[in-house]
Order: sequence, then structure tokens, then C-alpha cells
Amino acid sequence: MDCIFCKIINEEIPADKVFENDKVVAFLDIRPINPGHTLIIPKKHVESLFEVDEETLKEIMLTAQKVAKGIIIALGLQGFNFTQNHGAVAGQIVPHLHWHIIPRKENDGLQPWDRKVEYKEGEKEKVAEKIKREII
Amino acid sequence: MDCIFCKIINEEIPADKVFENDKVVAFLDIRPINPGHTLIIPKKHVESLFEVDEETLKEIMLTAQKVAKGIIIALGLQGFNFTQNHGAVAGQIVPHLHWHIIPRKENDGLQPWDRKVEYKEGEKEKVAEKIKREII
Repeated sequence: MDCIFCKIINEEIPADKVFENDKVVAFLDIRPINPGHTLIIPKKHVESLFEVDEETLKEIMLTAQKVAKGIIIALGLQGFNFTQNHGAVAGQIVPHLHWHIIPRKENDGLQPWDRKVEYKEGEKEKVAEKIKREII
Repeated sequence: MDCIFCKIINEEIPADKVFENDKVVAFLDIRPINPGHTLIIPKKHVESLFEVDEETLKEIMLTAQKVAKGIIIALGLQGFNFTQNHGAVAGQIVPHLHWHIIPRKENDGLQPWDRKVEYKEGEKEKVAEKIKREII
């Protein structure tokens, strides 16, 4: 399989790993948004949140708690964004499930997305109903 | 406790809930980035990722899998961003732990953050070492 993250897992290409166990690996993003930008990935190749098994998902989250705390202390941060982008349209570049931990400091220049949408009268309730019907 | 999300949980203020069980609630954000923007929160009040217990965290993730799939189908999407903002500096407005599911479509105008950082020679390895030392 020609997956760059699988190659990192298999040590066919190098990466700056900060944490590893039998289920997950965490390593620095080589094209960081801020210094210390870290990725957490499952060792088993899956593309999306919908394919990952419960046990692995739990391990990713426990790892995120540990790694994010380490990043905050190591870099003297005030916060971070913990993000998973699903699909190319959402910015998923590598099709191997991964979470970003993006270190944040005051005045780092990153702007939150505009909350530009205003629901019309009654529209929000309709959207909620539509979604609710599809949740099983 | 004067927490707006706790008030939603306790039904003291209304919300457009799309999913609920004994541990978590999912409801529409009233100031959406895109239509269908949904929040998932634990019923037990905690502020951060570092305080949430393993069982609740697992339930949040299982809920996210269900709810995100429902949103995608209901709204005919190509993707979503699944994000938790830690700290005011990262955009956390309400100090009750919450995950955003932000629906994404082609040409919705949302721009990814610039990958503006270039590590100097040897710097990346040093940052990784620093972080690794703080992970316990």
C-alpha cells in the first residue's frame, strides 16, 4: 500500500515520533501550522472516522490526552485545536485517519472561521429534524 | 452553576437536540459556521479534554461517529471538520468541553490555516525531544 503514514508506521520513512504504542503513533507534522503541530494516527490503516474500531478510537483519545498535555507543558502554551478533517473538502490530505493537535498561543495570527450562517425562522428546527432522522 | 451547556442538558434553556443518551447530548450550534454545525457535549460538566473520564470520552466518540454520519447523509455533504478547541486562545468560548462537527461542501469559502512554519535545520528534532520528555 502506497500510504505515507503506513510508511512512517513501518519505519520505511523517518518521522519525529513523540509517542508510540501497539495501536497508535504520534509524530510532528512536517508542514506545521504552528511549531509542535502533532499528528496522531492509528497503526491499522483506515481512511475515516467511520471505519475505525472502538478500541483503537479509545486509544487515540487516551493518547491525545497524554500528548496534548505534553505539548502544552513543553512549549508553554495556552491552548490547542484538536481536529480531525474528514474528506478532501474538509482538508484531509492523507487518506489515513489522523488527528491534528495544533498548538496555540496569544496573537499567533490564526483566525477562527466566521460564524456566517443565520438560520431563517423555523429553518434550524427543520435541519435538526432532518439530521435526527438519519442518526441510527 | 451558571453554565449555558449545563442549562441545555437540564432543559432550562431550549436547544435543537439531534441525539441524546445518558452520557452525552448533541445539538445544533446556534451560531453555525455552516448549516448543520453540531456540538457534542458530555452531560457531566468538565471544562477540558484533560478532565473527562475514559468512559465518557469513548461515548462522545461513538456519538460523533453516529451523528457525523447522520449529518453527511441528511445534508448531502462531502466532509466535515471534527474539532475540539482547548482554551480561549484556541477559540473555546463556552468552558464546558465540546466537540464541533462542521459540515463541509465544495466551495463553501472556508480556508484552511496556512502551514506557515518552517523548522530550521535541527529544530524539528529538538521540538520533538522537548515534547517527548513531557509525555508521561
